[in-house]
Amino acid sequence: MGRWQPDARTRLQEAALALYGERGYEETTVAEIAERAGLTKRTFFRYFADKREVLFWGSELLEQHMVAAIEAAPASASALDMIGAALDAAAERFEEVREFAGMRHRIIASSHELQERELIKAASMAAAMTAALRARGLGDTAAAIAARMCLIIMQFAYGQWAGDADKTPFRQFARDALAQLREIAASG
Amino acid sequence: MGRWQPDARTRLQEAALALYGERGYEETTVAEIAERAGLTKRTFFRYFADKREVLFWGSELLEQHMVAAIEAAPASASALDMIGAALDAAAERFEEVREFAGMRHRIIASSHELQERELIKAASMAAAMTAALRARGLGDTAAAIAARMCLIIMQFAYGQWAGDADKTPFRQFARDALAQLREIAASG
Repeated sequence: MGRWQPDARTRLQEAALALYGERGYEETTVAEIAERAGLTKRTFFRYFADKREVLFWGSELLEQHMVAAIEAAPASASALDMIGAALDAAAERFEEVREFAGMRHRIIASSHELQERELIKAASMAAAMTAALRARGLGDTAAAIAARMCLIIMQFAYGQWAGDADKTPFRQFARDALAQLREIAASG
Repeated sequence: MGRWQPDARTRLQEAALALYGERGYEETTVAEIAERAGLTKRTFFRYFADKREVLFWGSELLEQHMVAAIEAAPASASALDMIGAALDAAAERFEEVREFAGMRHRIIASSHELQERELIKAASMAAAMTAALRARGLGDTAAAIAARMCLIIMQFAYGQWAGDADKTPFRQFARDALAQLREIAASG
């Protein structure tokens, strides 16, 4: 029985992150990523549109999971409960890719182009969650604000979690941040 | 006594917004903006680095005013009070440029490049307000979360205000959005 081999997508992601870390995102080519992964450029393009998308693969799935969590929340769920459910869904996805998270976070922080890309993805998630929250009966303003609250908690907690040496679960950072937000909102 | 003439910066802004609205942001050149304003390209570049910056002029000043409002809040001010003070400072700046706001908002919404630029400016404001809130004694997490709360309220209220035909003050939209945020935060 052969050794277990990660699939091509994972090998390409590992190779890309290693190269972006070693020589910089800008300086790395798709040919080099494919070579490091022991695959062809053609295989690379079967999985990713370009070298930028290696870093953002999975973000559509993340959005779908968060929206699904809002849709699946019990009828009695408050707006805050639905935000919590969406964050739990994000936590589950993030923990699956924890090994890449720190490196990914540092690489994105190193490039304006990548930061802008991340911000655009966040705007898409805000729109999708706003629609899901409206479908759950929130008013237009409440849905828009709740979706943005969820996003800022997610982004802030992600930054802490990705840089955390102690392997604290994402869920813990998200809960702490949400507790802070509640405290601030109640401070007036 | 001659008729009052708006200054060169205002004339260039008016000309740029009119042209972006008529023929699109991408299609408009600096030469055309200068010509419409009755000025030279050289004068344009004395005021703006490029045609994009016409739309973002004043954002450094907005950031400074919001930070100054946090710094000037009374010693007894809660985190929420400081967010409110920063939003009031933003309201004051926004009302000065209300006549441009609707057009500006539509033009930015029409272009990915401009949206990305706007998001980068927002990230800069979040960082500046986080630092100001830390200096006022908030913990690292609380300061970061409070700054982001302020930003999402500002962005959401700006969108409503810029598209509002009834000339409702920005401050009203900001207060309503902040009230919704408080209600959601207290709903758990």
